[in-house]
Amino acid sequence: MAKEIKHVDLKSITGPEFLSNLNYKELDILSNDIRNYILDITSKNGGHLSANLGTIDATIALCRTFDFKKDKIIFDVGHQCYTYKLLTGRQLDTLRQKDGISGFQKMEESPYDHFEAGHSSTSISAATGMAIARDLKGDNYDIVAFIGDSAIQNGLAFEGLNNLAQSNHKVIVVLNDNGMSISQPVGGLSRAFRKMSGSSFYIKSKNAFRKFFFLTRFGRWMWVKFTKIKNWFKRKVIGFNLFDTMGFSYIGPVDGHYIRHVEKALKQAKKSIRPVIVHIKTIKGKGYKYAEEDVEGSWHGVSKFDVATGEIKSKEAVVSWSEQYKFLLKNEIKINSDIITIVPATEHGSDLDSLFTEFPNRTIDVGIAEEHAFTLAGGLASSGIHPVVSIYSTFLQRGYDELSHDVARMNFNCTILIDRAGLVGNDGETHQGIYDEAFLYTIPNVTITMASRSNEALSLMKESLCKHGVFAIRYPREFFSVQTEGVKKIPYGTWKVEIESRSKEVAIVSVGPITVELKNKIQELGKDATLYNAIYLRPMDENRILELLNYKKVIIYNAYATKEGFANSLESKLMDLCYKGKVIVKTVPTEFVKQATIDEQRELFGIKIDNIIDLL
Amino acid sequence: MAKEIKHVDLKSITGPEFLSNLNYKELDILSNDIRNYILDITSKNGGHLSANLGTIDATIALCRTFDFKKDKIIFDVGHQCYTYKLLTGRQLDTLRQKDGISGFQKMEESPYDHFEAGHSSTSISAATGMAIARDLKGDNYDIVAFIGDSAIQNGLAFEGLNNLAQSNHKVIVVLNDNGMSISQPVGGLSRAFRKMSGSSFYIKSKNAFRKFFFLTRFGRWMWVKFTKIKNWFKRKVIGFNLFDTMGFSYIGPVDGHYIRHVEKALKQAKKSIRPVIVHIKTIKGKGYKYAEEDVEGSWHGVSKFDVATGEIKSKEAVVSWSEQYKFLLKNEIKINSDIITIVPATEHGSDLDSLFTEFPNRTIDVGIAEEHAFTLAGGLASSGIHPVVSIYSTFLQRGYDELSHDVARMNFNCTILIDRAGLVGNDGETHQGIYDEAFLYTIPNVTITMASRSNEALSLMKESLCKHGVFAIRYPREFFSVQTEGVKKIPYGTWKVEIESRSKEVAIVSVGPITVELKNKIQELGKDATLYNAIYLRPMDENRILELLNYKKVIIYNAYATKEGFANSLESKLMDLCYKGKVIVKTVPTEFVKQATIDEQRELFGIKIDNIIDLL
Repeated sequence: MAKEIKHVDLKSITGPEFLSNLNYKELDILSNDIRNYILDITSKNGGHLSANLGTIDATIALCRTFDFKKDKIIFDVGHQCYTYKLLTGRQLDTLRQKDGISGFQKMEESPYDHFEAGHSSTSISAATGMAIARDLKGDNYDIVAFIGDSAIQNGLAFEGLNNLAQSNHKVIVVLNDNGMSISQPVGGLSRAFRKMSGSSFYIKSKNAFRKFFFLTRFGRWMWVKFTKIKNWFKRKVIGFNLFDTMGFSYIGPVDGHYIRHVEKALKQAKKSIRPVIVHIKTIKGKGYKYAEEDVEGSWHGVSKFDVATGEIKSKEAVVSWSEQYKFLLKNEIKINSDIITIVPATEHGSDLDSLFTEFPNRTIDVGIAEEHAFTLAGGLASSGIHPVVSIYSTFLQRGYDELSHDVARMNFNCTILIDRAGLVGNDGETHQGIYDEAFLYTIPNVTITMASRSNEALSLMKESLCKHGVFAIRYPREFFSVQTEGVKKIPYGTWKVEIESRSKEVAIVSVGPITVELKNKIQELGKDATLYNAIYLRPMDENRILELLNYKKVIIYNAYATKEGFANSLESKLMDLCYKGKVIVKTVPTEFVKQATIDEQRELFGIKIDNIIDLL
Repeated sequence: MAKEIKHVDLKSITGPEFLSNLNYKELDILSNDIRNYILDITSKNGGHLSANLGTIDATIALCRTFDFKKDKIIFDVGHQCYTYKLLTGRQLDTLRQKDGISGFQKMEESPYDHFEAGHSSTSISAATGMAIARDLKGDNYDIVAFIGDSAIQNGLAFEGLNNLAQSNHKVIVVLNDNGMSISQPVGGLSRAFRKMSGSSFYIKSKNAFRKFFFLTRFGRWMWVKFTKIKNWFKRKVIGFNLFDTMGFSYIGPVDGHYIRHVEKALKQAKKSIRPVIVHIKTIKGKGYKYAEEDVEGSWHGVSKFDVATGEIKSKEAVVSWSEQYKFLLKNEIKINSDIITIVPATEHGSDLDSLFTEFPNRTIDVGIAEEHAFTLAGGLASSGIHPVVSIYSTFLQRGYDELSHDVARMNFNCTILIDRAGLVGNDGETHQGIYDEAFLYTIPNVTITMASRSNEALSLMKESLCKHGVFAIRYPREFFSVQTEGVKKIPYGTWKVEIESRSKEVAIVSVGPITVELKNKIQELGKDATLYNAIYLRPMDENRILELLNYKKVIIYNAYATKEGFANSLESKLMDLCYKGKVIVKTVPTEFVKQATIDEQRELFGIKIDNIIDLL
């Protein structure tokens, strides 16, 4: 018998094998220790807190039931895998830092990671692919997709479920139902989940029924053999649930914080020969008061905080671009009754909570449903409403087709506030906002802009409401500390001249907030260059482009995007005009950019202000 | 009483008002006349046949129940709206022709068209947007989303349903269940539909129950007031169905070819104050033997055919690029057990039927689920399978995020066969394949290619299986008549020199099959120019680009894409190399391109071969 241990030294964990030597009391102690460890790490490094606190117990149960050296697991989104990382031998001290441990599953980090995610709702589809491959090759192992109740409401997850049910390759889908995900659960499916969860009479009846059968060997045989009887019984008592209807076996709901119960359900699922749903109920933020009480999602992704007081350690008084645009949007909503704001589950992330509170009828959180967000916007616009879609750059990718066909193609008026555009730092590859400018450039009828100062932002926000079709406003995750005063309307499609050169040797066409810093640095060093602030990335300022022809050297500087959009198009225009000087392009490279601070990433790519100064 | 009329003169229809003067017998005659008219038109112009034959009766019922001058209707996809066009006063003689009637709903065509589609599954989201706008403005009219059973299984439709159920704005969703859509229905939801449809006992019971209540005024009051009783009864008899579970009212299923029954269901739906599903059962291709018996989807979209014999009027012996790639893929599947082919409901459209018949375990039709197709491919690739995703260019848009994150980001090996790349002709704006090259250029790790001859296609197909990550092969909808013999391996990332110039005055970098015609024309006319065949659009042939520096003029000719991808990137490279000559770019403009023949479209944009010759 295993000797009685009180605490496992978390630093000593090299793999999940030790778990089988612990009894349930010891596992609870371990769970608590991991909870404190995660709190400690995220309070120092930032990261995803609530989801990780909620899944510690289930992860322990998973690692005891399966052998993830051969079995496979995909954590949907992947932001809830901290416990898994720890149990599979990865210390989290360097979490989310350059060359450190990723905040998501990462195949190169460990043989225990079998897939990578970052965007929501991919796990079922990927697991189905794995299962088809396994069965084609005649291999024998289990595949688990661990997915939350909000993520499963996304269209991709539904397509995955639909195909999995039909293909009938065995995958175990663990539905982690915490009833709140990023913010409040939305949608008709949530209602269905609530119905399933509420049927405790069913669970009790089922357990009694099971016990009765297991009294005899014949009964046990019947239980195993005649699942149809069970299904009949189930239907008679609660009717179909969604998963039954689609053809899944369904186990649950079970309390996801009782390791023993979760294990039992998982073992039952392991025996199934068909795709099976294990429905567990967990509490997001479990064990940490502030996170448990959080209904707005403030503790979903956190920056550094004080564990004891729950106080966020913020830098000096700074304003985020999200806050700035919330402020501007709120002012417009107040005076224009035709505006409706749509967000795909990023209400809190984009700092729009107060907008939702103040204007409940003029704000819509569609949940993690980016495709729907844009087609919904198209429907609104077709009926004379001006939709404002607020979305992170990285999630905009999901709505590419709908933005193109259901909004831009009919030339509907629609503002898109693209939050977290550019490099995003520690979230790493799956959340980079560097691609949207280029892919928006491939869609006709889309105006693309980026302000460098708050008063420019104001001008863009107002202009976006003036029937220019789709009007995209990009802004970065970074903060800015100087509020600029005064409103000066920036005419549609124009650039601003920040500095006029004496010699006409060099012109810099610069994009976004960093332009202000660049201007200061040029003036501080007394360098000679014309500096254009390219507020409109499309359409471009054709008059300014003609001016560029007078310069010997043109530097195109965009630290917020790859070159395939604005930079290449400007080069193409210069070529059309037979420009004979030298053109230097400084943008983010077209790569998947790994985690580091934004500053570290810029340094790596040679796109800091100093790199531009060096060219003068 | 309306006078007995046998036939309505279809040419005289100016709007749907006349329908209210017809009795059901006359309506059936009308239905039959419309059927013959649609057969006649599509046999001459091509178009969507089966879906339109199947929805004639339901459309008549819709136009009698609603007033679509104020009420709104969105036909999902829009390819089943021919009857609607006719009934709202549009003759179809110019269907799908330049400046003629579009094959889809088109707002500028008629005040009866309230939205536009072409891609599947947008109707519920758009209708929800319209309903929110209506209710915000306090208006009072009905909004109908008419959607097929395959389209409703797409993730976007699910997101729409989910949001609609929760928002509770009234929309009438007519589920047109023909049990086969483009080809066979796939997925777990189909199973659910079959279950719902099968419960005729339920329908009979419900009708009896209703009659009993309507015997007295009190009963009628109870019926209207206590819908909960009804729901309880429903649940007890058939259990929940999917829509119930999500919170919809549900009416049906009814036979969609009995105009009277459909009308009755629609009237009931009209009275509802909540979102409601009307489930109708129809027969795709109804009334035309060949189309009714079609299980593969051969009669979904048709080119010209003989109505009497059902024989397709094809041109002289020609081979499509789809056929060519099917042939190549089949050869590879035979010798490589690690290949699995995935298609999103385009099995027949991309001519892959025989591949599916021969290799049932190595082919997957995921239905209209492009997002899932790519994440599934990622899952397969993670387990050592080489997925080949065959997809139309226009539908690839739907998988942008998943292709990027779930395949390219992990640098998985995957072949993408991009069918119908370039201008597509008569399908018009919603099906153009001119954008994919540009948006693929925004995604790292993606090889992009296009062959001009069948032996190049063979080389690309083989190369795509050699672990280059994501390997995209584009090919157009057009036919080619010359099979080229011999296999010559084209080294990865290289271009072919088709003609070498004597003078080094002009170099043409040309893309795709049109390059062969261009070559012939140049030689025929004895023009002097170097002609490069840019088989690899990314990575480009860096050695050939260096050669370009020797020419006074470089013409970049891509008749299959907009300029934001290959053309701009090549210009950018030339600029990096300080090229001082003239560059002329000839591509499809970045616009939404309307229906016409491909030739007419090329003429419009000045991108025919003659336009290039004129530059020499």
